[in-house]
Amino acid sequence: MAKKWANHPVVAGVGGADLYLDLTGAGGRRERLTRALREAVRTGRLAPGARLPPSRTLAADLGLARNTVADAYGELVAEGWLTARQGSGTRVAQRAEPVPRPHPRPGPPSRTGAHTGARTRAGDREGSDFLRSLQRPFLHDLRPGTPDVSAFPRQAWLTSARRALTAAPADAFSHGDVRGRPELRHALAGYLARARGVRADPGNIVICGGFVQGLTLLARVLPGEAALEAYGLGPYREVLADAGVRTRPLPVDAHGADIARLDRLPSVRTALLTPAHQFPTGVPLRPDRRAAVIDWARRGDGLVLEDDYDGEFRYDRQPVGAVQSLGPERVCYLGTASKSLAPTLRLAWMVLPEDLVDPVIAAKTPAEWISAVPDQLTLADFIRSGAYDRHLRAMRQRYRRRRDRLVTALAERVPRVRVTGIAAGMHAILELPRGAQETAVREAAERRGLGVTALSSFRYPALPGDAEEPGPALVVGYGSPAEHAFTAALEALCSVLEAELGGG
Amino acid sequence: MAKKWANHPVVAGVGGADLYLDLTGAGGRRERLTRALREAVRTGRLAPGARLPPSRTLAADLGLARNTVADAYGELVAEGWLTARQGSGTRVAQRAEPVPRPHPRPGPPSRTGAHTGARTRAGDREGSDFLRSLQRPFLHDLRPGTPDVSAFPRQAWLTSARRALTAAPADAFSHGDVRGRPELRHALAGYLARARGVRADPGNIVICGGFVQGLTLLARVLPGEAALEAYGLGPYREVLADAGVRTRPLPVDAHGADIARLDRLPSVRTALLTPAHQFPTGVPLRPDRRAAVIDWARRGDGLVLEDDYDGEFRYDRQPVGAVQSLGPERVCYLGTASKSLAPTLRLAWMVLPEDLVDPVIAAKTPAEWISAVPDQLTLADFIRSGAYDRHLRAMRQRYRRRRDRLVTALAERVPRVRVTGIAAGMHAILELPRGAQETAVREAAERRGLGVTALSSFRYPALPGDAEEPGPALVVGYGSPAEHAFTAALEALCSVLEAELGGG
Repeated sequence: MAKKWANHPVVAGVGGADLYLDLTGAGGRRERLTRALREAVRTGRLAPGARLPPSRTLAADLGLARNTVADAYGELVAEGWLTARQGSGTRVAQRAEPVPRPHPRPGPPSRTGAHTGARTRAGDREGSDFLRSLQRPFLHDLRPGTPDVSAFPRQAWLTSARRALTAAPADAFSHGDVRGRPELRHALAGYLARARGVRADPGNIVICGGFVQGLTLLARVLPGEAALEAYGLGPYREVLADAGVRTRPLPVDAHGADIARLDRLPSVRTALLTPAHQFPTGVPLRPDRRAAVIDWARRGDGLVLEDDYDGEFRYDRQPVGAVQSLGPERVCYLGTASKSLAPTLRLAWMVLPEDLVDPVIAAKTPAEWISAVPDQLTLADFIRSGAYDRHLRAMRQRYRRRRDRLVTALAERVPRVRVTGIAAGMHAILELPRGAQETAVREAAERRGLGVTALSSFRYPALPGDAEEPGPALVVGYGSPAEHAFTAALEALCSVLEAELGGG
Repeated sequence: MAKKWANHPVVAGVGGADLYLDLTGAGGRRERLTRALREAVRTGRLAPGARLPPSRTLAADLGLARNTVADAYGELVAEGWLTARQGSGTRVAQRAEPVPRPHPRPGPPSRTGAHTGARTRAGDREGSDFLRSLQRPFLHDLRPGTPDVSAFPRQAWLTSARRALTAAPADAFSHGDVRGRPELRHALAGYLARARGVRADPGNIVICGGFVQGLTLLARVLPGEAALEAYGLGPYREVLADAGVRTRPLPVDAHGADIARLDRLPSVRTALLTPAHQFPTGVPLRPDRRAAVIDWARRGDGLVLEDDYDGEFRYDRQPVGAVQSLGPERVCYLGTASKSLAPTLRLAWMVLPEDLVDPVIAAKTPAEWISAVPDQLTLADFIRSGAYDRHLRAMRQRYRRRRDRLVTALAERVPRVRVTGIAAGMHAILELPRGAQETAVREAAERRGLGVTALSSFRYPALPGDAEEPGPALVVGYGSPAEHAFTAALEALCSVLEAELGGG
């Protein structure tokens, strides 16, 4: 027995936990055990004050004579690594500080480091830059896209988690349906039909780890080239391009995307749209265009991807239901918990046309198998119990109040700025006076710790020559700050705009 | 106002919840409201018994005259869709059954359907087949790879969830570190150092959504071609191939992978190994080979990917620590909660060499941004509080008892079968007598509702001609059944083997 252990590291129980001891190397048993324990203390694996097992216990664990362990303890007490007191056993000495970590890593990681000889196969530079930009901290963050996560309903979420995990069948923890948990797909089918007018069968819903994962899957099966709104999120273009889908811009005007232009793009058979609240310009797609895009898809065997990212937040009496209900067989409806609850939940959903369900499932790689089941079960209970409706109602009121304060403050202090796109969502367009420089204003804001985004940064790189282009504007997200921080953020915004544009 | 609403669907509050009403189409206001409400009842969006808001309230919500709403209600009561009683208001009639769902979808989805004109860009057929195979139900499931999820520590997990989510800073819900939550990376660094001997700095740990996602990221940055153990999981080959990495088989013998052969593969600079407990043969990598693979990596600027999938479960006195500790600058250590807790948590971790951290982060696409934060925070607390150690200890005892029962039962009833690879993990190799047909035995088992796997199904397709090949064998996972179901599964296994191979 001893002959064997001596050539291997071992794991011994210490204080109810497992301790790794490296017993390899030169020397006899006592010497190797002493060295392994010393190393465990030195590197901090055995923390100061930690109690070691009685020598008899450790000896039995390791298949050693008790004296061998007692001798090792004695040597380490003599060296000062351990202390031994009557009644309290053998402990790690308090003054045995762990060595400092060799590689402190403050702040976000840079991209300058490169593994010797490593090659990078991912072509997703813009995507990664976008991810990194989200991590950039601002004192006042009015960039669009993030809800007020300080209002994340922690207690209600935990209540749902307890109910859902207690009631879940055991197989929920082993292998899930690749479409997502049935509990969640049923809860979503009911909710989406009721609140968004979506014609949703639970069997046609596929849960995904965020909108982008859904788009990544769809990119592998969608027909033809894809038309994207000429203003939108750059990473979506990248996701499609990475999957080999050629994209074309669809100009956006005061009534949403220019659907008629689809007929001039014969190679396009997919249209990715934000009909309820165009991102970022904030206009809803005009009713005749909603009908027209379904007609287009039916005529040419096309597909509409409906990105309903903030459809839950609407402030007037004309909430815009999902286009999907006009032609469920031609529309992939995509919704997400990233705006309604929190982006770090990594939960979104697709309602697919019947004949796309199997291709989308088949397009999943093993890495995309399913989303975390505890969160899926919790969200299902959260919806079913009415907590989701209550949360949305509270957040809608909160965002509406902020929107109203934003509009009022700007009208008073910087009346040259026109605020648009505010019928829904959690961001607004601030149209700057002709001649104002978006970038200069954004940079002035950033110098004061205020994060805002220039409208042009959402612009598709290659617009058609005859496309109507908006003037200089900022996209201001009023959702992101915590409630207590919104006043200061709004004040910072008004100050910057006063300074850069001049007041009334 | 009325002119506007009439062209749009609306959402009204019904019973504290949002109800979608499609008010578009022909006719006057009353007619359109009547039709929208009728459709909501007919399709089940308004459930039988649901109480409608008082006509005054709905009228105010919709900007209509009260009489318009009252008339619509009256008409639907007359048609039998609604009921109206003094004191209980207007409700959906109980006999108004929702229409049946048009597309019932029993059982797992088939892959025969294809979207008209859709093209499939994913080349991951084997991966998808593997995913689907996991969903195939057996009465007795002794396939390897899944732990006993009936023992998932729900209450302890929920306790950690409550503590973790209550204590979490608000920004945990908005935008996380692309490496994963610092709480979890710190907890893992301590645990892995203590229990597995891993030299882990929290800054070098990257959390991922399962082992395969980690491998997917690494495949984009690893150097050269990759050597894989000649027996292993097929999807891993696919993941590497999809990323453009050429793979070569490394024969496996009674002492693990044949490390010396790496020197005969000059284009190989990456080796993916399961050193603690080779999957599926179950042997640990012999100590001299552990040292040799690190030497190989140092000599040729190579990289070792250490898949420590079940390193927590070891039953003898020679637990095998991580190879990573021998050369942290040359090893990517990969661990997972899929075996220790549950595969549907989708949580795994990589401990990377310092110079690989930035390239791996940069290789993430937006869809791979982070894993769900609530689960990350919960696992961090679960580890820190000692609940993870307690759970592992209990499961280790449970699996060890099952292993012992398996060995004893087979020795008694089918002594011609030799059981190997049992020093660790939750699966065993059943070496069948020479001449026995693996596939025939597996099929006989499946006819009785027993899932086992032939060793050959894990074989690399193209082995070198001089590679030692094992005889016929089954891979039997004894972890998967619930505790109450293990006896019956073991009995089924013994019966099948007796019938197919004959007893003593």
